[in-house]
Amino acid sequence: MSLNQSDLLFLRRSLPFWGRLSERERKLVESSAALRVHPAGSSLHNGAADCTGLFVVKSGQVRTFILSDTGREITLFRLFERDICIFSASCMLKNIRFDVFIEAVENSETILVPTAVYNDLNQSSLAVSDYTNQLLSSRFSDVVWLLEQILFMSFDRRLALFLLEESAISGGDRLPTTHEEIAKNMGTAREVVTRMLRYFHSEGLVALSRGEIRILDRKKLEALSAQAHGSP
Amino acid sequence: MSLNQSDLLFLRRSLPFWGRLSERERKLVESSAALRVHPAGSSLHNGAADCTGLFVVKSGQVRTFILSDTGREITLFRLFERDICIFSASCMLKNIRFDVFIEAVENSETILVPTAVYNDLNQSSLAVSDYTNQLLSSRFSDVVWLLEQILFMSFDRRLALFLLEESAISGGDRLPTTHEEIAKNMGTAREVVTRMLRYFHSEGLVALSRGEIRILDRKKLEALSAQAHGSP
Repeated sequence: MSLNQSDLLFLRRSLPFWGRLSERERKLVESSAALRVHPAGSSLHNGAADCTGLFVVKSGQVRTFILSDTGREITLFRLFERDICIFSASCMLKNIRFDVFIEAVENSETILVPTAVYNDLNQSSLAVSDYTNQLLSSRFSDVVWLLEQILFMSFDRRLALFLLEESAISGGDRLPTTHEEIAKNMGTAREVVTRMLRYFHSEGLVALSRGEIRILDRKKLEALSAQAHGSP
Repeated sequence: MSLNQSDLLFLRRSLPFWGRLSERERKLVESSAALRVHPAGSSLHNGAADCTGLFVVKSGQVRTFILSDTGREITLFRLFERDICIFSASCMLKNIRFDVFIEAVENSETILVPTAVYNDLNQSSLAVSDYTNQLLSSRFSDVVWLLEQILFMSFDRRLALFLLEESAISGGDRLPTTHEEIAKNMGTAREVVTRMLRYFHSEGLVALSRGEIRILDRKKLEALSAQAHGSP
């Protein structure tokens, strides 16, 4: 489905390199981009079988994961409104040697820039190539962070345990506390707590607001807290 | 130490984008590049404290790792002759949010292109920016592969066990077998076996030659085979 005026506006505002594209390049993007609708649970990208293009999340939420031979999944990262995914165009990145799967967590809409078009831009525009670098660096950091959590910290488990204990103490799902307080209690840095709480939030475990953390999925939190080190 | 003629030649041949640089860019690289000597065990890059530049391994072997708060290390990848490392210039990649440490495994020599120079090229040359993408994609793939091994496969453990069993059967450190045979025995693909054997080789566990695998470090192999799933 080609784009209406409001989708075009959304796309222009979402692509950080838009202001540095030539008139010709902009026309190329606008004429080729398409809106896609994804019911919750549907697949957006199926490993090596697909290479549709780079997309921007217009609404909803999508999840990127890798898959083992036995069908076990691990979420690499989630994407929300205005987030951009390049792994659905990973065939253009010749050194990416792993298969990524992407599915809609909620009913979602994405705007797709076809692989051939994005690859052309990437080969002709420094702004786009630089953006590809930034995008790869950012996702790379997400994955290293995940690896660190798994190997070193079990900090996810410890934080889940801490939140459940606090909830038992306060007798409810609403915990009046700050990231700073939790960090002090757990002997770690506030940034570490904030980052993990955001991850919990993206996984639907907690809701975050100023001065309060609310437990949304106690069962999942309990499962996490009971996990053995190193096998999330 | 500035470069002599043979080092300059080595550098030109090692940088895949050399042929696409302008005369001015080449001069900039050649006049700023420096040879560095690293005794075995010495540090080449110390997390966020350093940002010296991109380097090419001229000789020896270096190891890139991440470090936990408690001092635990995990090797992300190793680099050998002609391999190029960008993480020693990771301050120029603004979305890289993890700290990498690099040390010489053997006595090594590297040729360094300072961060400021590589960053300039990256901002002005599409060939260089594209190369940065390729380098990031390749290292990204290494790390995802490591994550998969840890989470899904325990294939490292299974292969270590297999090699030790074969060695007990044949009564020596030399196993006359092919990757294909091992793959059949273990019910997996040859590529999977080859990749893990290369990893074992880079970790000094085995030597590889045509039709033969030789066990070099039986103790390490035993330690690996005894490991619990998910905690390498």
